[in-house]
Amino acid sequence: MTDIITAAMIVIGDEILSGRTKDRNIGHLADVMTAIGIDLKEVRIVPDEEDEIVAAVNALRARHAYVFTTGGIGPTHDDITADSVAKAFGVPCEYDARAYAMMEAHYAARDMEFTEARKRMARMPVGAEHIDNPVSLAPGFRIGNVHVMAGVPAIFQAMLDNVVPTLRTGVKLLSRTVHCPFGEGVIGGPLADIQKAFPDTIIGSYPKYQDGTFWTELVVRSRSPESLAAATAAVQAMVDGLGPRS
Amino acid sequence: MTDIITAAMIVIGDEILSGRTKDRNIGHLADVMTAIGIDLKEVRIVPDEEDEIVAAVNALRARHAYVFTTGGIGPTHDDITADSVAKAFGVPCEYDARAYAMMEAHYAARDMEFTEARKRMARMPVGAEHIDNPVSLAPGFRIGNVHVMAGVPAIFQAMLDNVVPTLRTGVKLLSRTVHCPFGEGVIGGPLADIQKAFPDTIIGSYPKYQDGTFWTELVVRSRSPESLAAATAAVQAMVDGLGPRS
Repeated sequence: MTDIITAAMIVIGDEILSGRTKDRNIGHLADVMTAIGIDLKEVRIVPDEEDEIVAAVNALRARHAYVFTTGGIGPTHDDITADSVAKAFGVPCEYDARAYAMMEAHYAARDMEFTEARKRMARMPVGAEHIDNPVSLAPGFRIGNVHVMAGVPAIFQAMLDNVVPTLRTGVKLLSRTVHCPFGEGVIGGPLADIQKAFPDTIIGSYPKYQDGTFWTELVVRSRSPESLAAATAAVQAMVDGLGPRS
Repeated sequence: MTDIITAAMIVIGDEILSGRTKDRNIGHLADVMTAIGIDLKEVRIVPDEEDEIVAAVNALRARHAYVFTTGGIGPTHDDITADSVAKAFGVPCEYDARAYAMMEAHYAARDMEFTEARKRMARMPVGAEHIDNPVSLAPGFRIGNVHVMAGVPAIFQAMLDNVVPTLRTGVKLLSRTVHCPFGEGVIGGPLADIQKAFPDTIIGSYPKYQDGTFWTELVVRSRSPESLAAATAAVQAMVDGLGPRS
């Protein structure tokens, strides 16, 4: 049995649920996880409400090797992620001495006030480790298998770059795409037969539609290069057998 | 107490979790819900796995007035949404006579074979009602408070347009945005005080970062036009009091 490592993501923020901000972090995390061989299995978008964050963190950290959160770690009153994650782990949320000192020095060097709001960003669950933030200093943190990162995409991406080398990664899921000039209605039957014949592959069928025309992208995934090649060849032969390509 | 109507969304599909397809439906649903006065409170992205879909449908349909799903209603073997939703409701998933007849006539008129795969798209939980699909005919469906729609954005949007007039809508959450040329660290304290002074508003603070500069968009939301105006004025006064705008 191949070692499968799974992950989940929690996107925290009323602004995503209201449509005001369009999330750009889910797709990025999905791409990165796929690239390093970790299966992203679930994403939840939750509001800025403690009970909802606690419930999502506890549900997902028990089920997956890793949980990644974005959002809610800034300095304002609606940034309640650190407190909520601390509550989920049953530990206090306190000023982290190292983060506090680092941020105090940072603002002093710039002649900026280290306001109470900014100090909030030095709070984290007791026992958490920093995730460095090369963009705007205030760190994210990891506690247990939960990685807490910023929602601003540039900062999230920079933090994630620092997290990736610390993760245990699995055997990468390989993939091959076969373009099919027909809609799914034509290929559904034979494709199901190919899926049955190659049980250690996952064959996905993704319908596309534009300007009145349907086509399909067929994606074969497997952790075995041999199975991938054989199933891809079968899918390609099926498509070729359907008639001339458009 | 104002009548608050809440909703949740379930995005179904391995292709979103692998990063191969970037979701475009969450933001659209969020925008539409906000426009019609329904609060989207949670989104879950789940894989093409029956247990996961059933669990998400049952968790969310019990908690919210409406649930909207996208994805997994096409003709291929990985399209298991209809079966999974039927299982969640404890009813059989069968060919719907009206959908079957409509699709049969549609393909006959075009001299196209009504394949087994295409027939799959006429299956739905017993007792479900159609959601018309003006793009590619095969309908979505509603059962109980769960609305099952396509994942292809053009089709999802067309189906949602047909669903919206059937929904009970709430008092619309109004919003006003105040641009703040400062980062959150400066405003966090006073903003929290304004939030406390206007308990029937929700004041969100959304940090922005580009090319080394931080700024913030402050969004005041309320169902009361009077509270909205008063809280927005207080936020604007706070920003103006911080110094010249950039």
